[in-house]
Amino acid sequence: MKAVVVEKGESRPTVRDVPDPTPEPGEALLRTLRVGIDGTDHEVIRGNHGGYPPGDDYQILGHEAVAVVEDANGTELEEGELVVPTVRRPPGETNDYFERDEPDMAPEGLYVERGIVGAHGYMSEFFTSPSEFLVPVPDEFAEHGFLVEPISNTEKALEHAFAARSAFEWDPTSALVLGNGPLGLLTLAALQTPSLPFERTYCLGRRDRPDPTIDVVERLGSTYVDSRETPVDEIPGAHEAVDFVYEATGYAKHAFETVDALAPNGVGALLGIPNDWEFEVDGGRLHRELVLENKALFGSVNSNVRQFEAAKKRFTEFPDWFADALVTGVYSLSEVDAAFETGDDVIKTAVEFDTP
Amino acid sequence: MKAVVVEKGESRPTVRDVPDPTPEPGEALLRTLRVGIDGTDHEVIRGNHGGYPPGDDYQILGHEAVAVVEDANGTELEEGELVVPTVRRPPGETNDYFERDEPDMAPEGLYVERGIVGAHGYMSEFFTSPSEFLVPVPDEFAEHGFLVEPISNTEKALEHAFAARSAFEWDPTSALVLGNGPLGLLTLAALQTPSLPFERTYCLGRRDRPDPTIDVVERLGSTYVDSRETPVDEIPGAHEAVDFVYEATGYAKHAFETVDALAPNGVGALLGIPNDWEFEVDGGRLHRELVLENKALFGSVNSNVRQFEAAKKRFTEFPDWFADALVTGVYSLSEVDAAFETGDDVIKTAVEFDTP
Repeated sequence: MKAVVVEKGESRPTVRDVPDPTPEPGEALLRTLRVGIDGTDHEVIRGNHGGYPPGDDYQILGHEAVAVVEDANGTELEEGELVVPTVRRPPGETNDYFERDEPDMAPEGLYVERGIVGAHGYMSEFFTSPSEFLVPVPDEFAEHGFLVEPISNTEKALEHAFAARSAFEWDPTSALVLGNGPLGLLTLAALQTPSLPFERTYCLGRRDRPDPTIDVVERLGSTYVDSRETPVDEIPGAHEAVDFVYEATGYAKHAFETVDALAPNGVGALLGIPNDWEFEVDGGRLHRELVLENKALFGSVNSNVRQFEAAKKRFTEFPDWFADALVTGVYSLSEVDAAFETGDDVIKTAVEFDTP
Repeated sequence: MKAVVVEKGESRPTVRDVPDPTPEPGEALLRTLRVGIDGTDHEVIRGNHGGYPPGDDYQILGHEAVAVVEDANGTELEEGELVVPTVRRPPGETNDYFERDEPDMAPEGLYVERGIVGAHGYMSEFFTSPSEFLVPVPDEFAEHGFLVEPISNTEKALEHAFAARSAFEWDPTSALVLGNGPLGLLTLAALQTPSLPFERTYCLGRRDRPDPTIDVVERLGSTYVDSRETPVDEIPGAHEAVDFVYEATGYAKHAFETVDALAPNGVGALLGIPNDWEFEVDGGRLHRELVLENKALFGSVNSNVRQFEAAKKRFTEFPDWFADALVTGVYSLSEVDAAFETGDDVIKTAVEFDTP
């Protein structure tokens, strides 16, 4: 079958033939519909990942997929049903984190990540997976179901944020998303859904108008903040101190400036993954602000089945126009280079393998 | 009546006559037994507080007290009953934070603090308080009940720490206290109680043996870590990465090093209050570690009645010898200068006004 891979020593994706997968007992065979592309895929392509799948000199890309059950293979799934796969798998032997359905909390060494590190991804015509890592989704998810994975990361961050503030009566009304990339915009859409309490949201970027991401921000009813005019730590003065900050840039200074952007009792979720970077901070002031204003910060990575389920639900609350505005391109296997191109007109792209 | 005060323009405590207090409706009159001294009192004495009580040119010190109900004044309290007062009071008008019994979460401007900022403390022969801010304690608390207030700060931090990790199955077994002052040692004693899950604890200080605080650390069954030999970020290598860090030093670099000391999924509570201090950090690495290892940090200040109740319970779990070892001096009004002296042989002191 055909797969989109990065070959060892290469730094761009290519299409190659790989062996057809055969499901083991407990696994289903899936026919891939679409696979989304995000920043992590670009990191993998640049070689910034932990290792190729054992025995292979190529890595099949992709961790955001929607697929059809081709062969249920005795699992509880039904053939023809749509599913979204989770990302983490046990590294050979299983462990407590997987057994309690919390692989997202497993420390390094206790997981591999499909399409990212140590295991092949979903950018192939077929793939196999244990059924416990496949989340059934309704037929309407055929087109944009690959967005469930990134939304699930936001669901985890929201779960942890509300948990972190659950020892007292927290009534957040304002939220700030740092970053207007696909994850930032998906999070902004989530924060604007009626089941969350945020009345005013802000999204930080560094783009000039006209810009499709600013259009999405404003169409969602949110306020665009240009970081070149209003740095993160000046947002309280220019707009308001916010109850929740979601950092989706990986720009390390934002983690520290988040403390300044937060209102008393607020919480900041860090999701970006920066490289080493030394810089000066007023550590005394930041420490003091955290204490005297009861502020919290946490990091969040990956997501589990419960959070995929929450993401499914959240996705149905998004405005109808949103996914079409976010997904600026869907490409066939013959257009893979175009699928991985970035640019000011590109928000989110996907590779299409098949239709239901 | 006599009170221990800091006079405007002075920078040491003195004893002076102040008017006898008269309870308003809803308030009880309390006869003070003992009042503990902590680092905040020294800050107040140095003038680092927000302001004298309205209309007065002196501040009665003290926020850690145990007292007897002298006149219940129609409240639900009983005369002769022992109580411990909480610290925060409404700044004139009440507000939502007080109405929901969470004054500890009130932002600046929405509270005064008795003995600290904007309201007189408890270092006087008598004081008054609305009964809702008085926590009844058993008669056995006459001697050391003034420790309930500092322990309640730890109870709040523990509540928030467990809350912050409640979105997943967190099974902490190790904890590190930064600081071997009174709050650090009280916290260490709390962490060692059987109702908490910590099996191995560490306490960081910078003292040479023989030293009474190191003796307390070791008698509690904890491991003393000399920060001059093992900096905070080297504790994982020298001992182990820990699930919980409690920062009680106000040394701002510790807030950042805490991220390194934590095990994956761990949480750090910051309680010290540093001054401004700019320094360099590897912000990229810290940010990345928070994210990839699902770590959390939060600040915590003050405590509410629920946490005072938890502190009462916690205190009864402490080993019998602990309070006597911690409280190295109890001084009468005529020895106030000695009560405020610090030194290597001093851990915690109190001023005694009366006995039950």
